Amino acid sequence: MKKLDYEKLLMIPGPTMVPNTVLTSMANPIIGHRTKQYSELLEDTVEKMKKVFMTKNDTYFITGSGTSAMDMAISNTVDKGDKVLTITNGNFGERFYNIAKVYKADIIRLENEWGDCAKPEQVKEILDENPDIKVVTIIHNETSTGVRNPIEEIGNIVKDYDALYVVDTVSSLGGDYVDVDKFNIDICVTGSQKCIAAPPGMAAISVSEKAWDVINKTETKSFYLDINAYKKRYESKKETPYTPSVTLTYAMNEALELVLNEGLENRFKRHEKLAKATRAGLEAMGIELFAKEGARSVTVTSAKYPEGIKDSEFRGLLADKYGILVAGGQAQVSGKIFRVGHMGMAKEHHILGTLAAIEMAFKELGCDVDSGIDAAKEILKI
Amino acid sequence: MKKLDYEKLLMIPGPTMVPNTVLTSMANPIIGHRTKQYSELLEDTVEKMKKVFMTKNDTYFITGSGTSAMDMAISNTVDKGDKVLTITNGNFGERFYNIAKVYKADIIRLENEWGDCAKPEQVKEILDENPDIKVVTIIHNETSTGVRNPIEEIGNIVKDYDALYVVDTVSSLGGDYVDVDKFNIDICVTGSQKCIAAPPGMAAISVSEKAWDVINKTETKSFYLDINAYKKRYESKKETPYTPSVTLTYAMNEALELVLNEGLENRFKRHEKLAKATRAGLEAMGIELFAKEGARSVTVTSAKYPEGIKDSEFRGLLADKYGILVAGGQAQVSGKIFRVGHMGMAKEHHILGTLAAIEMAFKELGCDVDSGIDAAKEILKI
Repeated sequence: MKKLDYEKLLMIPGPTMVPNTVLTSMANPIIGHRTKQYSELLEDTVEKMKKVFMTKNDTYFITGSGTSAMDMAISNTVDKGDKVLTITNGNFGERFYNIAKVYKADIIRLENEWGDCAKPEQVKEILDENPDIKVVTIIHNETSTGVRNPIEEIGNIVKDYDALYVVDTVSSLGGDYVDVDKFNIDICVTGSQKCIAAPPGMAAISVSEKAWDVINKTETKSFYLDINAYKKRYESKKETPYTPSVTLTYAMNEALELVLNEGLENRFKRHEKLAKATRAGLEAMGIELFAKEGARSVTVTSAKYPEGIKDSEFRGLLADKYGILVAGGQAQVSGKIFRVGHMGMAKEHHILGTLAAIEMAFKELGCDVDSGIDAAKEILKI
Repeated sequence: MKKLDYEKLLMIPGPTMVPNTVLTSMANPIIGHRTKQYSELLEDTVEKMKKVFMTKNDTYFITGSGTSAMDMAISNTVDKGDKVLTITNGNFGERFYNIAKVYKADIIRLENEWGDCAKPEQVKEILDENPDIKVVTIIHNETSTGVRNPIEEIGNIVKDYDALYVVDTVSSLGGDYVDVDKFNIDICVTGSQKCIAAPPGMAAISVSEKAWDVINKTETKSFYLDINAYKKRYESKKETPYTPSVTLTYAMNEALELVLNEGLENRFKRHEKLAKATRAGLEAMGIELFAKEGARSVTVTSAKYPEGIKDSEFRGLLADKYGILVAGGQAQVSGKIFRVGHMGMAKEHHILGTLAAIEMAFKELGCDVDSGIDAAKEILKI
């Protein structure tokens, strides 16, 4: 195998750069997963995860991508014909829709324009008209469009109905404000590789009492993702039902420790500041942001390509000449937007370097943009 | 978090000890998973995996435990009411049974005594009586009992029927002889953490043409484990459908490289030799082996406790005083047997040290066993 080039700056919306102490924790020898040692490690990691979720709810880790937790949330609560409201305004909202389809839900699809956020009053209307909705799904931070959905406001509505509130916080948790209990989130799912800044491969899920009541009445439709097996094994032995990723447990424990050491409040402020600086920088360059004002993510910024810029050329130049990876658009906005991730361990200098390189790349491709650096500096110096 | 004690010798049947070059590969920075670099890494790893599977069949990695691949094998081939023959003689055979139950298969259960292996002629009889069997499941190496099932002989029978042949080689592949194509295995599943000696958290699956024909006619019953998504993404972009465990891809690539460098033949011979030495040592001590002669695994040895020995005391002493982890029995043989894993990177000195420590522990617990070292040495010096 050819030597890999590990030197690229990951300004993509995940996986994000992982601190060295987290990376090197995985170079430690393997311990047995049916030992008191592993149980203690797992319990400690779960307790840290609960603090980051801000929840008292049961919390489990899954050896899998973030999508495995999304699947677990739906397959354990939705039976054939059950009414599900999927709030979509991007590719990951679509994913919940597609998962619900596999389990043959009767789906009400509330679709907002890509680039805009969900509207709480629309959710209320649909719930009033359909009191038999069993599950409402939403993405907190729609990674594909750089949009933040108002999950607190919507949670405040859903809590007065029978429906479970299922929220994907894969690309926000640990970077943007999420309080699972205060927001009335029944099932919250997240991944290791975004704002928590651990490597990809582990997902987490929290489950409220209200959710357990539904799960207990739902048919088991998956073996690997049957949440009852996770509950049973964790409650009896503080273990996982199947062999867990031991090294990713090391990494998650260490990464969550770093998140808590920085402090959630500080972390939210840092992400907010980096987002503002990125937006200000791009706008000063004359680049139009994609997500609407008031709907913008604090962990990923989406922007429209200026006329004449080709996605592959721009991102190729940025990667090859300046060593920076940013993301393109997905699905219906493919080729039309680019996305800059500023989550996890992102720092001021990453934003400044990236903004300057974006400017240089656009100029090299014949698009005469202004400099965005001064505008970003104004934000970052505060 | 309390400092972990990484110094225990893992003589359990997985996860196994991981070579330092594999462990440290995971301390490398994360690369983007939607980059040419990752695609090249994945393709290289898949090609190595195919060599270890000895197959030309399509091969995919799943971010998940070995069980995720077992689930994928069944959920993608078995619809409600489909006839499945599950060959069981231990806890992992039971797992296939339990997975098939979740998908509401019409299950024929061929159960052999725990400690004994499956009988090819019984499989033939059942297939003759039930030509509508769609899937036959078997565990190559039944980790829970230390038994090896005759998968080549059974494969030679199943190939003449319509049924798919689904084989779990989680605790044998890379240590015991498995030739997916020669053995007519339609779906072969394995895990990273046993004989391949990578950390746990990644599973692999191979799929024959005959299996694709069935998969194409089977209802999609899982989102995360829908194999069509893996096929589509790999064929179009050499990517995974959902964010993969990047660090475990590093580790698998490196671990498979070490397997191929040692050579599969050499690796099989080493495992065979270590197994023989372990058995000879235990028998010389006066310990009765659990698995029947002719049915014994080359990657894990199971043995009955002498009268009066308590499982928790014995394994506790071995772990705390001698720093060696061995496994106890599962389910119906819990407390009655212990299991010594000798897979992956296990070497002669591990066997010798473990046999001597087992002898010392038994003596300390009041059971006057003989020494097994000389018998083991006789085997190992060859």
